[in-house]
Amino acid sequence: MTTNPRIIFNEIPHGLPNPRTSLIVDNTLTIDLDNVPLQGGILVKALAFSLDPYMRNRMRPVDIQGDIDAFPLGETINGFSVAVVLRSETPLIQAGQHVYGFLHYQRYSVIPSIDAAVLGLKGLSLQVLDNKYNLPWRYYVGALGMSGQTAYYGLKDISNPKPGETLYISAACGAVGHLVVQLAKAQGLKVIASCGSDQKVSLVKSLGADHVFNYKTADTAAELHAHGPIDIYFDLVGGPTLEAAIDNLACNARIIICGMISQYNSGADKAYGVRNLWLLNRYRARMQGLVVIDWADKYLDEFHDTVPRDLAAGKLKYLEHVYHGMDKVGEALVDLLVGNNVGKSVLVLEDDT
Amino acid sequence: MTTNPRIIFNEIPHGLPNPRTSLIVDNTLTIDLDNVPLQGGILVKALAFSLDPYMRNRMRPVDIQGDIDAFPLGETINGFSVAVVLRSETPLIQAGQHVYGFLHYQRYSVIPSIDAAVLGLKGLSLQVLDNKYNLPWRYYVGALGMSGQTAYYGLKDISNPKPGETLYISAACGAVGHLVVQLAKAQGLKVIASCGSDQKVSLVKSLGADHVFNYKTADTAAELHAHGPIDIYFDLVGGPTLEAAIDNLACNARIIICGMISQYNSGADKAYGVRNLWLLNRYRARMQGLVVIDWADKYLDEFHDTVPRDLAAGKLKYLEHVYHGMDKVGEALVDLLVGNNVGKSVLVLEDDT
Repeated sequence: MTTNPRIIFNEIPHGLPNPRTSLIVDNTLTIDLDNVPLQGGILVKALAFSLDPYMRNRMRPVDIQGDIDAFPLGETINGFSVAVVLRSETPLIQAGQHVYGFLHYQRYSVIPSIDAAVLGLKGLSLQVLDNKYNLPWRYYVGALGMSGQTAYYGLKDISNPKPGETLYISAACGAVGHLVVQLAKAQGLKVIASCGSDQKVSLVKSLGADHVFNYKTADTAAELHAHGPIDIYFDLVGGPTLEAAIDNLACNARIIICGMISQYNSGADKAYGVRNLWLLNRYRARMQGLVVIDWADKYLDEFHDTVPRDLAAGKLKYLEHVYHGMDKVGEALVDLLVGNNVGKSVLVLEDDT
Repeated sequence: MTTNPRIIFNEIPHGLPNPRTSLIVDNTLTIDLDNVPLQGGILVKALAFSLDPYMRNRMRPVDIQGDIDAFPLGETINGFSVAVVLRSETPLIQAGQHVYGFLHYQRYSVIPSIDAAVLGLKGLSLQVLDNKYNLPWRYYVGALGMSGQTAYYGLKDISNPKPGETLYISAACGAVGHLVVQLAKAQGLKVIASCGSDQKVSLVKSLGADHVFNYKTADTAAELHAHGPIDIYFDLVGGPTLEAAIDNLACNARIIICGMISQYNSGADKAYGVRNLWLLNRYRARMQGLVVIDWADKYLDEFHDTVPRDLAAGKLKYLEHVYHGMDKVGEALVDLLVGNNVGKSVLVLEDDT
């Protein structure tokens, strides 16, 4: 029998999660890797787990409705993972292949009854990875996973950019933001970017952004006024930053609502109220929510054709904040929520990934 | 010489305008109708003026930027008007024809140098009216003018309705709202509507809305929760009503931001902050500002082909609140801003219109 470590949701946080008690590693379960029944499915070994701001939303009582199911207290959490197949009872997948999907955050998982139709779906379901450019497998939970796809789809479709337009990206040194900066530059946009430290400002400048500021020391509204108006705002933070962006829109502007990390630790009553929505009328602006899985069917093939190639060629730089070992999960999540991370936060379980 | 009465902007209001001092009639000017030089243009006699909530936004100091130019203090205000042509020096327009456009609110106006290219433009510029159904000319500042076009374009394009979907319309007994109710029903939508008195509730029910409530006595969020979720919200009021609508959206919902009458009398600091914009992400919702003139080029011909016909046939009911005489302007504007009007507010200068 082999120990099967897993990450469980141990405590519902109020405000910022406690890094030691909210998500904890449980080592009490074991698994018989050779004999565990697969029910026509596969046995996988997880290599890396994605850590994302939306997970904070799931750390709530199960009876409160949310964007995505709450994590049941005391149970294994789940999310986007990359894993290697150890055994298979389906002709659709071979041992040794790698898969990406929404899996439990435990070292070993049985995924029973793999269905060809489900495998063909893009989005949440399991995907067998190709990786023809031999990129590290962990990239598939980051630049090649939800984060990269969010950047790509949001910029591609909802924002519909024209060369010469001005894009503003907040959280520009984060998992999605630093990719948006580069994809936007590649499409001929002027990029204004904000992030939360001088070190991040330098990094984002090095990625090609035209104007970068530290929102903790500069005045966001004044920066946007000086360098705008904004044709496209890729919003990852919400709150006062969104309000400042709306104040500085160009006519026919597009705002992509992708996440609101500034609001995740405040209760509904404490959420910031955006007071200038009437400006959407003045500027004939469009604000639209983006959920990455909705767009996979339309753009995932194109994404897989271009982004891995550009990463391999070094045309697209990928910033990662790698944490080694499941026991780093609490610390990593808090880093992410307070902005101590640089680039994509990944929990890596094996060094060779 | 003939007296040429006009409405001038006399006092910048704080909060609700004073009905006696903010907009006043000035009778000191005269005009020589037979000999006034037309400079190749036309002389018109105004028949009716449109009164619209957006005009409150224009009653501000000229140095404060806004959706549309401020009214200069002490000068004649302007807006959508219908007028009859008294004299013409251009072959493009004949005396006796009627025109619609953005004119000064004075009884007689010279519109010099009519340009064929400008006449061909749809939107703000002058249009020669056809009126083949012999509808009252004043309809062209209401159901057939900006109000009707706003209802038509917003429902047609931005909301892209599918039969069976649920639409919510606020200010449903107003100039735009009562037309939205009927156009939406004609397209097979379920219509939830709110307005500000029990009399208006009855009227809007008689127009075919499925569920109507008085927002002053009912709880908007509870009503929308019970009768939603909402696929399309046609927002004319903003503020807490918009927030309640966002709380009750369906997936892929569309919100048309058309005006925010609830916010027009509050300064920027007093504006209501909408706290739940992150739900746009959960519901993959789209919120878009609509300014009527932007869509005229695409839809005005279609509008003129269908809406006058349906009004003439009685298929579309038009609610008007007619004020007779320029001196009613202050009272009429305040009625409009506090919701004492029913349907479209029109200032009529001649009884036969």
